[in-house]
Amino acid sequence: MYDRIKGFRDFYPREMQSRQQVIETVESTARGYGFRPIGTPALEQAKMYADKSGEEILDELYAFEDRGGREVALTPELTPTVARMVVARQQELSKPIKWVSTRPFWRYEEPQQGRFREFYQTNVDIFGTSDPAADAEILAVAGDALSNLGLTGEDFEFHVSHRDILGGLLEGFDADVDTTAAIRAVDKRAKVDRDEYFELLESAGLSDSQAAEFDDLLGTPEADLDDLVAFAGTDRVAAAVANLQAVLAATESFGVREYCTLSLTTARGLDYYTGTVFECFDSTGEVSRAVFGGGRYDDLIEGFGGQPTPAVGFAPGYATLSLLCQRAGVWPEETLQTDYYVLQVGDTQSVAATVARELRERGHVVESDVSGRSFGAQLEYADSINAETVVIVGERDLENGEVTLRDMESGEQTQVAIDEFPGANTRPTVANFEN
Amino acid sequence: MYDRIKGFRDFYPREMQSRQQVIETVESTARGYGFRPIGTPALEQAKMYADKSGEEILDELYAFEDRGGREVALTPELTPTVARMVVARQQELSKPIKWVSTRPFWRYEEPQQGRFREFYQTNVDIFGTSDPAADAEILAVAGDALSNLGLTGEDFEFHVSHRDILGGLLEGFDADVDTTAAIRAVDKRAKVDRDEYFELLESAGLSDSQAAEFDDLLGTPEADLDDLVAFAGTDRVAAAVANLQAVLAATESFGVREYCTLSLTTARGLDYYTGTVFECFDSTGEVSRAVFGGGRYDDLIEGFGGQPTPAVGFAPGYATLSLLCQRAGVWPEETLQTDYYVLQVGDTQSVAATVARELRERGHVVESDVSGRSFGAQLEYADSINAETVVIVGERDLENGEVTLRDMESGEQTQVAIDEFPGANTRPTVANFEN
Repeated sequence: MYDRIKGFRDFYPREMQSRQQVIETVESTARGYGFRPIGTPALEQAKMYADKSGEEILDELYAFEDRGGREVALTPELTPTVARMVVARQQELSKPIKWVSTRPFWRYEEPQQGRFREFYQTNVDIFGTSDPAADAEILAVAGDALSNLGLTGEDFEFHVSHRDILGGLLEGFDADVDTTAAIRAVDKRAKVDRDEYFELLESAGLSDSQAAEFDDLLGTPEADLDDLVAFAGTDRVAAAVANLQAVLAATESFGVREYCTLSLTTARGLDYYTGTVFECFDSTGEVSRAVFGGGRYDDLIEGFGGQPTPAVGFAPGYATLSLLCQRAGVWPEETLQTDYYVLQVGDTQSVAATVARELRERGHVVESDVSGRSFGAQLEYADSINAETVVIVGERDLENGEVTLRDMESGEQTQVAIDEFPGANTRPTVANFEN
Repeated sequence: MYDRIKGFRDFYPREMQSRQQVIETVESTARGYGFRPIGTPALEQAKMYADKSGEEILDELYAFEDRGGREVALTPELTPTVARMVVARQQELSKPIKWVSTRPFWRYEEPQQGRFREFYQTNVDIFGTSDPAADAEILAVAGDALSNLGLTGEDFEFHVSHRDILGGLLEGFDADVDTTAAIRAVDKRAKVDRDEYFELLESAGLSDSQAAEFDDLLGTPEADLDDLVAFAGTDRVAAAVANLQAVLAATESFGVREYCTLSLTTARGLDYYTGTVFECFDSTGEVSRAVFGGGRYDDLIEGFGGQPTPAVGFAPGYATLSLLCQRAGVWPEETLQTDYYVLQVGDTQSVAATVARELRERGHVVESDVSGRSFGAQLEYADSINAETVVIVGERDLENGEVTLRDMESGEQTQVAIDEFPGANTRPTVANFEN
């Protein structure tokens, strides 16, 4: 009778369980590094986005006037919100501020494979340090999260670049270059055809030959980074190259160097990045877009009226990360997990409820009949929820002080004394991803 | 520079950690009963709410027209959404369907203590069984969740009532009664003054004396429930009373009878309830409103175009539940938890990163310097994040193959061989609520 809204999704239990397992793996990796969970609103003032990106951004958002006449928008990303939160408490928060959160965001865009109007991201950010170790820690959390999901260096790679190298090189051309537009062009390099890409560079102010030369420079391999310093001859490029080299060196300490490849053609779409930027790609190319990305945004907090506060972060989105996990065969199996089904035969609700309660107190997932069903219907249901063991609580068995345990895989049945069950039968912690 | 929107909240790490601990306790209680997590959209068609409650409900919602001309609303509650989801897959879902989820909802209401425009709820629902055991299981999940939070029968009570008893009694009066309006009046009984309450009953169609008689009947104690059957003399009231008695008897099996008190003046505000309804109250009355509530809504799925599917559920909201936990002194302490801070002295980033990594692999929360700070500044930061142990990785110690462990509570320091640390030092699972 009612339809779901286009671009929005319902997650039923089997799929949801796998999604939660993946999200929990990413979040717990970040929590292990001391990133602290925060909670943020779904609505913000629309001008928070319009001020940064122009009024036209509002066409891509769910922006509207609320009943109190406020121009508001469903948050399309977290970064402006966390910037606002840092500014609001900048005096009392001890630095570095390390935050993590997972929640939905919303954009009014045309849905396609791996893109929805409502999409989930985990945001991981460090505020208050410009040290290359912070950039490396972000790359380490990203790398560890993917390893913890079962992915390896054969599955993914991080394309690492630096906004200030791009900006510094552009500055070196004898032309009036719109740096923001030129960097946006670089971000589109792999997404549009070659002619369109060069047109974008030229409309950003580069001549035909300058655009070609700039594009050549973007192919510089890591070993030749110092050539860029010589080419530009500016402190800005020298500092940017040294910074990028320091970040890459620090990733060695953090154990994630192997995932990182220099790729100056990686620029990231958002304007606020200032230093290191990176994107994670599927090594096989089967997932054709970047799986996720991140980078340094040292000017944003000041732009939000705060004290100068360097920042770096990344934000895996689960639409593309799911595609990578599925491609690599590590997406968690979408089956329900149930430890026990307590089956009632005759008027045994009270004993069955007690058995179920004792099993739950030992950490198990336990269902029992709440429908007044027959033996056969209960057994069928126990099978449908993938119960490992069925505890049959029957009137006759109870007269002998016993219950029957049925192993659902083998079908084997054993009688146990009710006084001795469940006993010390605690659940091994590894059996559930939440543990 | 930018303000948060009125009625919306930011949660910083200390408060968020406590909130997540409370939410996880409630959710894991439900998961123990076999309720399966689902994920649901933040936006639905506005008419899903308007059809049920009239166009005027939209004034209390964040309803707007999206860029594609759709009339949409930020979801004010979950029940219509789960009803839509059940209808969409009613053939393939095995019954009973048991779902749980926690997420924010939104209403454009005046904020007050314990009420926000963005608020979080856990929804716990069973679809596909009208057996009293299902109602009792919902009460059991509610009771166990509160016990697991550290609350006792001294702290809270469940006021249990039955919509069909109220409806059946109203039907028994020789008057043209608007049952929905009369039940709404009962729901307002404790919130408005006595005159206003009786005016509401009278405008629902009862005479002066009928209203007084009806209100008297609502005071019937549990032992005298059969008097209501005699008074009404209808099968409807007889069946409703028998059903409520069966639910209360089943709560005995489920171990939560002690929390339940009959209270026919409990009606719940939402129109869709059909059978058992209940509200949880602070026993001390300090939290003056209902902490949360729930009940049976057997007609909703059919009203959404599905096959007749009975349903029962409850939905604790964390604004009021927090008030109850705080009043009872069981709100989790709002302090950060950090197992280790790995302090770098001199050029020891690589060793420190390795130590930190090995500790994290053992399940610990570990931070290390990402700001290039001095010994003193690092120690101060370790203190600010409440680190239990500081591992001092110094150049000179390393020459001897050692690191220093500093217990932050006692200040005691010990040297350990780097080869033997962290060793088998795994974290006890009880130390973190997620485990």
